[in-house]
Amino acid sequence: MSDLHVYDTTLRDGAQQEGLNLSVADKLTIASHLDDLGVGFIEGGWPGANPKDTEFFARAATDLTLKNATLAAFGATRRAGGSAATDPLVRALLDSQASVVTLVAKSHVGHVERALRTTREENLEMIRDTVSFLRGEGRRVFLDAEHFFDGYAVDRAYALEALRAAAESGAEVLALCDTNGGMLPSRIGDVVADVADALGVAGATGTDTRLGIHCHNDTGCAVANSMVAVDAGATHVQGTVNGYGERTGNANLVTVVANLQLKQGVQLIEPHRLQESTRISHAISEVTNVPAYSRQPYTGASAFAHKAGLHASAIKVDPDLYQHLDPKQVGNDMRMLISDMAGRASIELKARELGLDLDPTDAADSALVQRVLAKVKDLELRGYTFDAADASFELLLRREVEGALPDFFEVESWRVITDSQSHGDALSEATVKITTGGKRVLRTGEGNGPVNALDHALRLALATAYPEIEHLELIDYRVRILDAAHGTDAVTRVLIETSDGETTWETIGVAANILEASWDALVESVTYGLLRAAVPVR
Amino acid sequence: MSDLHVYDTTLRDGAQQEGLNLSVADKLTIASHLDDLGVGFIEGGWPGANPKDTEFFARAATDLTLKNATLAAFGATRRAGGSAATDPLVRALLDSQASVVTLVAKSHVGHVERALRTTREENLEMIRDTVSFLRGEGRRVFLDAEHFFDGYAVDRAYALEALRAAAESGAEVLALCDTNGGMLPSRIGDVVADVADALGVAGATGTDTRLGIHCHNDTGCAVANSMVAVDAGATHVQGTVNGYGERTGNANLVTVVANLQLKQGVQLIEPHRLQESTRISHAISEVTNVPAYSRQPYTGASAFAHKAGLHASAIKVDPDLYQHLDPKQVGNDMRMLISDMAGRASIELKARELGLDLDPTDAADSALVQRVLAKVKDLELRGYTFDAADASFELLLRREVEGALPDFFEVESWRVITDSQSHGDALSEATVKITTGGKRVLRTGEGNGPVNALDHALRLALATAYPEIEHLELIDYRVRILDAAHGTDAVTRVLIETSDGETTWETIGVAANILEASWDALVESVTYGLLRAAVPVR
Repeated sequence: MSDLHVYDTTLRDGAQQEGLNLSVADKLTIASHLDDLGVGFIEGGWPGANPKDTEFFARAATDLTLKNATLAAFGATRRAGGSAATDPLVRALLDSQASVVTLVAKSHVGHVERALRTTREENLEMIRDTVSFLRGEGRRVFLDAEHFFDGYAVDRAYALEALRAAAESGAEVLALCDTNGGMLPSRIGDVVADVADALGVAGATGTDTRLGIHCHNDTGCAVANSMVAVDAGATHVQGTVNGYGERTGNANLVTVVANLQLKQGVQLIEPHRLQESTRISHAISEVTNVPAYSRQPYTGASAFAHKAGLHASAIKVDPDLYQHLDPKQVGNDMRMLISDMAGRASIELKARELGLDLDPTDAADSALVQRVLAKVKDLELRGYTFDAADASFELLLRREVEGALPDFFEVESWRVITDSQSHGDALSEATVKITTGGKRVLRTGEGNGPVNALDHALRLALATAYPEIEHLELIDYRVRILDAAHGTDAVTRVLIETSDGETTWETIGVAANILEASWDALVESVTYGLLRAAVPVR
Repeated sequence: MSDLHVYDTTLRDGAQQEGLNLSVADKLTIASHLDDLGVGFIEGGWPGANPKDTEFFARAATDLTLKNATLAAFGATRRAGGSAATDPLVRALLDSQASVVTLVAKSHVGHVERALRTTREENLEMIRDTVSFLRGEGRRVFLDAEHFFDGYAVDRAYALEALRAAAESGAEVLALCDTNGGMLPSRIGDVVADVADALGVAGATGTDTRLGIHCHNDTGCAVANSMVAVDAGATHVQGTVNGYGERTGNANLVTVVANLQLKQGVQLIEPHRLQESTRISHAISEVTNVPAYSRQPYTGASAFAHKAGLHASAIKVDPDLYQHLDPKQVGNDMRMLISDMAGRASIELKARELGLDLDPTDAADSALVQRVLAKVKDLELRGYTFDAADASFELLLRREVEGALPDFFEVESWRVITDSQSHGDALSEATVKITTGGKRVLRTGEGNGPVNALDHALRLALATAYPEIEHLELIDYRVRILDAAHGTDAVTRVLIETSDGETTWETIGVAANILEASWDALVESVTYGLLRAAVPVR
């Protein structure tokens, strides 16, 4: 394993992206995903500067167990004319309990004088004082040299002096930031090599200080600039998952890691973790609710998709003729194969996992697999996505296997009324009509939203026959409008996560009407819950 | 002006993108846009291989008047064992009447032997024969050396021999293609420099043959690889608008041109044309129906958008402190995003952008800014996110400025009923009661979902007083459930995008009830539309 730092800043710099707004719970979930991915450092936010980030570190200290990663708190050098020991924002960094503190500091004279409005010397003193103080308090300190490349162009000596001030005060990493994102690869390479030479930090080994790189994608070169910087001596790379970030985004960390590891043989994360990167990239998209970019390198849905034609016949001869590497290395798939071969195999595997053993040599079993496959393809075309709704896939499979899915109840109809109130919040009221055990049941439930009301009414209607549903709880509800931009009729996809206190499962509904999609997902969720509890049909 | 070729292949390689399907009319429209952009060459398609492309060239010959660009036809070398003079596909290239023919040829021994299933020598002969024949017919010939970089790695001598065969037969351009997209900048630079040296074509001047570069984005480096190739001697760059293309796409040609021209001083297209690139990039998105990628360098909607409060105060001092160049050079704009990270400076800047000039030294204006800031922070804590809802922020700001927001109408109440039908899809019906111009209006609308029904009912209720709303169209609707994982009451955030045919705006609603949130966002969207159209209160 290389000791190059893989430093993720999705939760801090990534969150600067337009339209991205993460709750504390979202940030904790993403941190777990990043840890699973195997990054070395997770920059959690700026405690003290914003209450949400302060809460994140407080909750992380108790609720978050990291297997691989170290949590880093981001903050600024103390204010001009003050002292690090009494600066409330520096205090908040200590209070965060993060063992690594990443300090942003000015290294560009123009920014020192015009944005910070202080002197060159005081800025250096702010760096020295803050780094020394934090080191004295036992923290590892990384420095983000803001606007470094622009600063270097304006006044190389001062830019280097800022780095030296940090290094001499005990900073372990000097991350050179292309804050405005305007750099090109040739320039980045030259500057990093010169800095490494000037500071005597060429390569991480044999010295206490390492150079880092932090790039933005304003010239479309964030990944390349990061690669070139590593070639030139940087041993710490910053980036974000899915390239989230302000303006055009930050360097996509997964792309950089995959390039370094799969193309240049630098071992950064364990291969089985890299194989999770497609899944994790998509899981994080679900949390941020930023639609996954299908053309994203390595992890995008289209990254290994081939349109039929010139390529198809060559791929049949040898897939490697038309792909730059094996997509399995990043947990992605060549799209041409998944439709038949991989499809059948995964359905057989899934059936086995569910205890429904299918014999591929048996004609009836083989026909069943074919039927399920056709159904999955048809439904996915209509907006279903079974990889996010395991429980619904199991129900689909069981419906095809004689006797594998009991008929717990039958739906006759449902209706929801939502009313604005003259004062206060809108109220929803749902009525459902179902039949269970030959008996027709009609119940009405209320809720603070239409889905909540439908959920209540369904529970009331089932409570007598199936008191077991009392333990089921709807814990997450997600909605996505598909194809709204295409001018065609939008289709709504609803994913519901349900818990029985022991485990959770996800079900899906897809329909033009959001409430119909929600109802379908609800019925699936309850059906799966009854199945799991092995409740007899009543 | 540099004589470097700007060669666009949006209509051929770009059209290989998943989900992209262009009609002949679409292709003609895009060709006009490309010509307006000022590219040197437009690769129109593969006549003969596909009837649509044959028709494109036929119609282009009569209907398309190009001011700047030259049309190129794409095709392959003649088939093995045949003759270029009698090959029907080579004939189709001549019939296209394009003055430039770009021939794809194999330069990778593995592909020659395994995909083409012919001999090394025959492949060279196919190149010689086809290039000579087309030259003899008076066409300029460009060569796309497919899989060049992979081929060079496997057998450098043969890869070079393929290039030489083309050059000696009269090919003007030898475009080195990273067909599988797996290359990294350092490698590309080395190979291009070696090829330029081996063939004696370093730099375009003084020689008849030039090297070209054709990159894909599978390592996230398509733009950087193109830049590095130009640095190493390539004088012909291929790419596509918006980076369209198979898998992860081709090199984004606008990004490459902007980088070369604005960062390296290589004059490729007239500055006033570059200033059209944002408009043209979006106009082409409208034709392809692929939603514009907001994080796209230079032309993306977010490319010059700033969210962090830290940046905003510096931007007030000097915008150049936080942008890598003036967005006007590519026809884009700096935008300030309002979020809970915003400070006073962001709000003052935003107000200025909206033409509401606030004087920071004036006590009343200063108090207003403070009030707006407090409101934004409070609302963002409750789930609002104004950086994704510019129009709602403008309404919020105007509500605080005396007389800046007319009272178009007043809402009394609304109600929606959604019913499952015994057969077929669920149906929604909404009733709204509003007052406008002292008159109470009550209307009922239907829809395939509750929000659709509310939208219809609101339009019906407003139609008499404000016939202008007929032009407003709801074009996107997004829902996010916030903090559902907390077990507390979930809050729903709805974002609505509305268009008046000229521009689009986003509004937001947040409430426990999804329909209440949707209603709030709808009312904001219509209010903003009436404001924009400068409709008087009726």
